[in-house]
Amino acid sequence: MAERNATLGSTIQALLEEKKYSTIKDVLVTMEPADVAGILEEIGDVRIPKIFRLLPKEQAAETFAELDPELQELLIRGFSDAELHDIIEELYVDDAVDLVEEMPANVVKRILSQANPDTRKEINDLLRYPENSAGSIMTTEYVSLRPTMTVRDAINRIRSTGVDKETIYTCYVTENRKLLGQVSVKDMILCTDESTPVSQIMDEHVISVSTLTDQEEVAQMLSKYNFLALPVIDTDGHMVGIVTFDDAMDVMVEETTEDIEKMAAILPSDKTYLRSNAWDLFRHRIPWLALLMVSATFTGMIITGFEDALAAVVVLTAFIPMLMDTGGNSGSQASVSIIRALSLGELEFADLPKVVWKEIQTAVLCGCALALLCFGKIMLVDKLIMGADVNLLTAAVVCCTMAVTVLIAKIVGCTLPMGAQKLGLDPAVMASPFITTIVDALSLLVYFGIAKALLF
Amino acid sequence: MAERNATLGSTIQALLEEKKYSTIKDVLVTMEPADVAGILEEIGDVRIPKIFRLLPKEQAAETFAELDPELQELLIRGFSDAELHDIIEELYVDDAVDLVEEMPANVVKRILSQANPDTRKEINDLLRYPENSAGSIMTTEYVSLRPTMTVRDAINRIRSTGVDKETIYTCYVTENRKLLGQVSVKDMILCTDESTPVSQIMDEHVISVSTLTDQEEVAQMLSKYNFLALPVIDTDGHMVGIVTFDDAMDVMVEETTEDIEKMAAILPSDKTYLRSNAWDLFRHRIPWLALLMVSATFTGMIITGFEDALAAVVVLTAFIPMLMDTGGNSGSQASVSIIRALSLGELEFADLPKVVWKEIQTAVLCGCALALLCFGKIMLVDKLIMGADVNLLTAAVVCCTMAVTVLIAKIVGCTLPMGAQKLGLDPAVMASPFITTIVDALSLLVYFGIAKALLF
Repeated sequence: MAERNATLGSTIQALLEEKKYSTIKDVLVTMEPADVAGILEEIGDVRIPKIFRLLPKEQAAETFAELDPELQELLIRGFSDAELHDIIEELYVDDAVDLVEEMPANVVKRILSQANPDTRKEINDLLRYPENSAGSIMTTEYVSLRPTMTVRDAINRIRSTGVDKETIYTCYVTENRKLLGQVSVKDMILCTDESTPVSQIMDEHVISVSTLTDQEEVAQMLSKYNFLALPVIDTDGHMVGIVTFDDAMDVMVEETTEDIEKMAAILPSDKTYLRSNAWDLFRHRIPWLALLMVSATFTGMIITGFEDALAAVVVLTAFIPMLMDTGGNSGSQASVSIIRALSLGELEFADLPKVVWKEIQTAVLCGCALALLCFGKIMLVDKLIMGADVNLLTAAVVCCTMAVTVLIAKIVGCTLPMGAQKLGLDPAVMASPFITTIVDALSLLVYFGIAKALLF
Repeated sequence: MAERNATLGSTIQALLEEKKYSTIKDVLVTMEPADVAGILEEIGDVRIPKIFRLLPKEQAAETFAELDPELQELLIRGFSDAELHDIIEELYVDDAVDLVEEMPANVVKRILSQANPDTRKEINDLLRYPENSAGSIMTTEYVSLRPTMTVRDAINRIRSTGVDKETIYTCYVTENRKLLGQVSVKDMILCTDESTPVSQIMDEHVISVSTLTDQEEVAQMLSKYNFLALPVIDTDGHMVGIVTFDDAMDVMVEETTEDIEKMAAILPSDKTYLRSNAWDLFRHRIPWLALLMVSATFTGMIITGFEDALAAVVVLTAFIPMLMDTGGNSGSQASVSIIRALSLGELEFADLPKVVWKEIQTAVLCGCALALLCFGKIMLVDKLIMGADVNLLTAAVVCCTMAVTVLIAKIVGCTLPMGAQKLGLDPAVMASPFITTIVDALSLLVYFGIAKALLF
């Protein structure tokens, strides 16, 4: 896809040089808003407003919603008041809210001053919901029906108001702003008698969320039930909006990226990789790097404490990286599996005993297999081929440590994320780097403990 | 959600003891299929077929599609031929294909023998597409219209055939199986004149995918364009099916889980964590653990090669874990950011110079900050407080190594995944564990190199 846009982008630029505006318009109107946005971003040029003005009103608004905040700001600064007013009114209100959240204060002021009073009120209402709540991602533009309407009335209502609604396919039956039921356009089309009241064909068992429900939970529910939209109810029990599946998809991608970043010891960021500069990357990466570096002091202290043992059997040092890496890898395998299962809602704290038992069994299997392999490797590769100064007893020390380290790593790796979740912390933070640091220290203690017992 | 089902599950069990079947039925019919499936799985009992038979036909089929393969098999073994026939015919054909793929051979034989000849042919056709292709996840149940039909004809056609279609909201206009355009139910409802031919209101610029397109790309396109469905075209240019947004959501979750598993050095698995037993976990975890353990031999060899240096300045050993961990963490920060951006389609190989330059800048910032912090830590904590035998020169060696290691780690961390992608390999495999092993070896070489230059 990216390549197709790239080629089209250069074609558009060539047409622009030749001032062939009507050709450009003919090409752009055939395209999806996301692709037009891609082309504008590729051109990235002072002539963007000129191209943007060629788009028909609705496509212009949809393309605008897909643009990077930088380009949105550039366009807004170039818009006349009338143009800005048209775009704001044409945008879905949840997209307008996203825009207001991204723009600097002086641009926000201009946006709000150009919006109609109704739109301004809606935007301000939505801005008041906490970040990452259902309220903050919902839209207020849904089709509401009265229970006494017939199917014919309902279809007429959709016809008169539907063009501005984010989805028309699920309609909500309300009375005094209380949600009574939902009815799909499919049900209405399949209903053979158009004079049937909607209250008769509506589904009264509506699954809804509250304005304060976490957006990740909303996305999981939409995905679980395969719904097009979920209604949102405020604390007074009134229906105030809907969250649609496309917003849920965006939330899922965003939340997963955040989880992955946390697992890699990066503070989560809203910006994509290419849009972050080196300073942004630095700020998001240095805190964990510094913290983990300092906490590696303990590992260093353990080594210092056993300096005499290491000086006596120098070859022991050579196995430290292998033991530490294997421990780290074993722990992160367990923690990452658990974190993913937690974030998909497959696991809960009550499963802890089951999980620990499963990890212990797995650790015994992995630990024994690795210990055997390691023993073979030491005696064949290290001793015979490389001629290292290692005897059977030393090999036994290394292999015992290996098995015990894997066991410790798997147990720490599965309990820490589940404990974090229980304490209301984010389990993703308990991922590889954090666990590696703990497992490093523990595995060295085991190593020197076993070495002291067997070798000295 | 899980808790709500848990409570309902025990209520249903209590009602079952008292044989109150009509009450159970009244409760279940109000619920979404995904929730009914959750309750059946919680009850997990020989009485499941009894409860299942209480469900109305359509709800039964939808609930069946949501169940774990183990329960599906249990139900099928208990079904009469007539019951099995009804379920198969009621299932959407893509769900039937999923079922056939999961069941053992003798069950598959029975399923296919009970399906109508048409259904059997459709299932067999879909089974022939390669795994993870658009063909393998599409459904053949979509609404197709002729270009000469009027809006009224089209709505009548939806009314007569729509009940079995996976979505009716996007209809496809075809002639001789060639896709001419698409028209949404929204466009038809908003069209005021019902005698307008659909060819006049259809959108001719339809974005489609091929049967062989990778399922991940299909999911990304649905998410990018916010479509409800994407048409699938075979190699002869005929329209053969659609992929709907709910399947795309499932694909996204599945592919992301796979990426995350690969990043944590686990071979990807189709089973969820709770459904995998210890042997499954072992088989998916041991290959990378063993490979990485063996490759840590190189790190050990480097240490052995510098044994004399370590014996002379014993304190150098104590800093090895800190240097290795910081290198590993720096590398995995870079690689994980890049892998995520690649899998979201934000980056491509052509961006490599830009990416490397950004990582170098970030590495200089992180490296200098860490080196300074490390110097302070060594002189204050290690020397003053802990009384370690470390002088200014040794501290300088450690801090220089730190800065260089971070630089190497960030460059390796960003180039390896992009190179893998270019070579057609999966970038996710180039994540933390693999990079840690490489960075470990490189950072030790740097450490001993600098130590030799400055200390001896």
